[in-house]
Amino acid sequence: MVTPTVVPATGPVDTGAPVEPLLRTASGAEVLDCARAARPAARALAQLTSTAKNAALLAMAAALRERGSEILAANTRDVERAERAGTAASLVDRLRLTPARVEAMAQGLVDLVALPDPVGTVLRGSVLPNGLQLTQVRVPLGVVAIVYEARPNVTVDAAGIAVKSGNAALLRGSASAAASNAVLVEILATAGRSAGLPDAAVQLVPGTDRDSVTHLMTARGLVDVIIPRGGAGLIQAVVNGSTVPVIETGVGNCHVFVDADADPAMALEILLNSKTRRPSVCNAAETLLVHADVARSFVPAAVRALVGAGVTVHADTAVLDLVGPQDGVVPAVDADWDTEFLSLDIAVAVVADLDAAVEHIGRHGTGHTEAIVTGSLTSAQAFTARVDAAAVMVNASTAFTDGGEFGFGAEIGISTQKLHARGPMGLAELTSSKYVVTGTGQTRDAS
Amino acid sequence: MVTPTVVPATGPVDTGAPVEPLLRTASGAEVLDCARAARPAARALAQLTSTAKNAALLAMAAALRERGSEILAANTRDVERAERAGTAASLVDRLRLTPARVEAMAQGLVDLVALPDPVGTVLRGSVLPNGLQLTQVRVPLGVVAIVYEARPNVTVDAAGIAVKSGNAALLRGSASAAASNAVLVEILATAGRSAGLPDAAVQLVPGTDRDSVTHLMTARGLVDVIIPRGGAGLIQAVVNGSTVPVIETGVGNCHVFVDADADPAMALEILLNSKTRRPSVCNAAETLLVHADVARSFVPAAVRALVGAGVTVHADTAVLDLVGPQDGVVPAVDADWDTEFLSLDIAVAVVADLDAAVEHIGRHGTGHTEAIVTGSLTSAQAFTARVDAAAVMVNASTAFTDGGEFGFGAEIGISTQKLHARGPMGLAELTSSKYVVTGTGQTRDAS
Repeated sequence: MVTPTVVPATGPVDTGAPVEPLLRTASGAEVLDCARAARPAARALAQLTSTAKNAALLAMAAALRERGSEILAANTRDVERAERAGTAASLVDRLRLTPARVEAMAQGLVDLVALPDPVGTVLRGSVLPNGLQLTQVRVPLGVVAIVYEARPNVTVDAAGIAVKSGNAALLRGSASAAASNAVLVEILATAGRSAGLPDAAVQLVPGTDRDSVTHLMTARGLVDVIIPRGGAGLIQAVVNGSTVPVIETGVGNCHVFVDADADPAMALEILLNSKTRRPSVCNAAETLLVHADVARSFVPAAVRALVGAGVTVHADTAVLDLVGPQDGVVPAVDADWDTEFLSLDIAVAVVADLDAAVEHIGRHGTGHTEAIVTGSLTSAQAFTARVDAAAVMVNASTAFTDGGEFGFGAEIGISTQKLHARGPMGLAELTSSKYVVTGTGQTRDAS
Repeated sequence: MVTPTVVPATGPVDTGAPVEPLLRTASGAEVLDCARAARPAARALAQLTSTAKNAALLAMAAALRERGSEILAANTRDVERAERAGTAASLVDRLRLTPARVEAMAQGLVDLVALPDPVGTVLRGSVLPNGLQLTQVRVPLGVVAIVYEARPNVTVDAAGIAVKSGNAALLRGSASAAASNAVLVEILATAGRSAGLPDAAVQLVPGTDRDSVTHLMTARGLVDVIIPRGGAGLIQAVVNGSTVPVIETGVGNCHVFVDADADPAMALEILLNSKTRRPSVCNAAETLLVHADVARSFVPAAVRALVGAGVTVHADTAVLDLVGPQDGVVPAVDADWDTEFLSLDIAVAVVADLDAAVEHIGRHGTGHTEAIVTGSLTSAQAFTARVDAAAVMVNASTAFTDGGEFGFGAEIGISTQKLHARGPMGLAELTSSKYVVTGTGQTRDAS
């Protein structure tokens, strides 16, 4: 047994405040013990019926509702610590829970009950020439680790999605939400167990320092997949250091391309919605590309609308020539084309044609969501065929790349890699498969 | 431009022989140039029709047939080098090409033409409540790297499967087959280009030392997936060091469990076929588990048959008690239960019941193929539900885990991981997907 080391929270030290005992380092042994405990839990979860899993989800939701005041009290500690540390108000807001937000988390678990259980679905089935019956069935992945930042609702969402898809969850939340996460996981685990889930079905990974993530992502053989959700720094660290298979999520340098044949009013609406609806999320647009043939009319209108909506336009020289110097418009620098602003900023360029737009997106995009606005079927076909991204939108806002919008009912993140899952990941994306081959004594020829 | 360093082949130095210029180190820059060249090739390949890809496959097959003598001459250099180095005869045999083997490689490419092209298949499609049309379509992965050992036929198989599935191939063969692989890839690339494939559709990765693999597996962003095919050492090195997503293949510590209700004659046939058909392949059985209720009759018969077939039995104490000391039977040591012998050896244990068999497999199996022989539906259901492996066989030989046997027509390897692909990987397993969302100007509400 290793004695945990208590470390202070990052940020300015407020010596008047007590050190938060939940913020601590964890040894590799502690993290691995957690992962080891998850394995028999995963085996048991894989055998549960949908009925049993749904009963556990309802019990977990009821427990969140019953114990809401404990959750809010713990959250207050996190919020106060963040405020003492001088955390930005927008981040404090993401951290803060309210009775309505607790209710939304509980309702999220209830909503999972209605979704079809992917486990056991037959993906392929046939009788082979030698009479063997071959079926490929969905099975849970096993032990799923999720490493995430800030928002405590991810704790509940991820636990619920893991349980419904038959996986054991290893949750590694951020230091800033340590108190909230500890209470939430204790409530979920206790309620789950009382409803028949195996011990260790849902665990909070100990440790709030980077080392605990390192221990987790090198636990190959114990952890089946690790999903980092958060900023580019976290995701890169996991991708580069993990020996456990990773699903990369969420970095979105998304483009809106306004083609020569675009309806200008539709293009403006899609542009504004893609940029300003929620600038801080990964499906927000970060660059506008305008076909040269319509730049003279569309660019001034677009810049006017963007600046009017409070957006700073990072303009290339062609755009600057068209709109002239004005408030809200700055010259674009090279780095702007590769920047996920996540703010009310957008890079704007004029491109010669669709080929140039596709080429620009290929060089600067992150493979998340790319949109074209066009009335031309030829352009739509070329753009959707040639742009390599998780989602390609034709005459629709980039904001639609979302598990809920796609009808999946739940989302564990948006994959921007090509292996295993691409785009919004729902329950099916947390499964693997198994071939079951049933015979009557068949053996294989020597050849 | 970096001047390649010529290094001698590994193994005993035969000073009378000329140094093979193909055996050399490659700089990181050379390997990355190769990967960079593959990216536009992948973009072009993704746009080719099935007709165009099939024409290229036929041209490649024709070129192999036309230039067979060049292939055999190059292969002779590899074989002679291996023999000079004192390589085991079985490995030299795997390396050696004959006119019949060249013809089989060419025919393998022709056979790919008949297989359905996975690219463009619609995986999901629906109209969302807001009228957006959502389709999820298969697209190629992009740039696929395959790192493999010994057998030059993998060069042709992998290139053909990559082309058919619309991917650019980066082939990194072993030093032992360097001359054969160089000629094969030159023939395939030249024929492919003349039939309309993009430049760099099929490339041999320079370098035959471990560093060239390291450069390849850290080329994240340039290479979409790396598939190691070969021994456990190679696979572990790639898994542990790769930042490119990996598909782990091929290590198979496969079990045959003979249940209390098994037909003994069927069990013997399945056991012998699983163990002795081709002991060196990953789907061969390495451990026999016998239910205690039938051990007294089945174990002596099984040991007699195994020893009669030239197999060395590594027996646990219960088995030793039943069969007594004899030639061909040695006491099992702990490591035997975790050993992929790949030879005429098998570990044999008596287990209390099906639960104990499942538990043993869970602790020692590698998730490849596990078989039960039973007449009991209850046992078959329990075994297939609870054993966690790519393939679970009921009353059939473990030897059936194979892309050809499963009807996939082609196989790039057998995945033993759960992410992306599990079990034999055919053309579809070399694809990803893309969501195409088509609207009429839809924007998303603020909430």
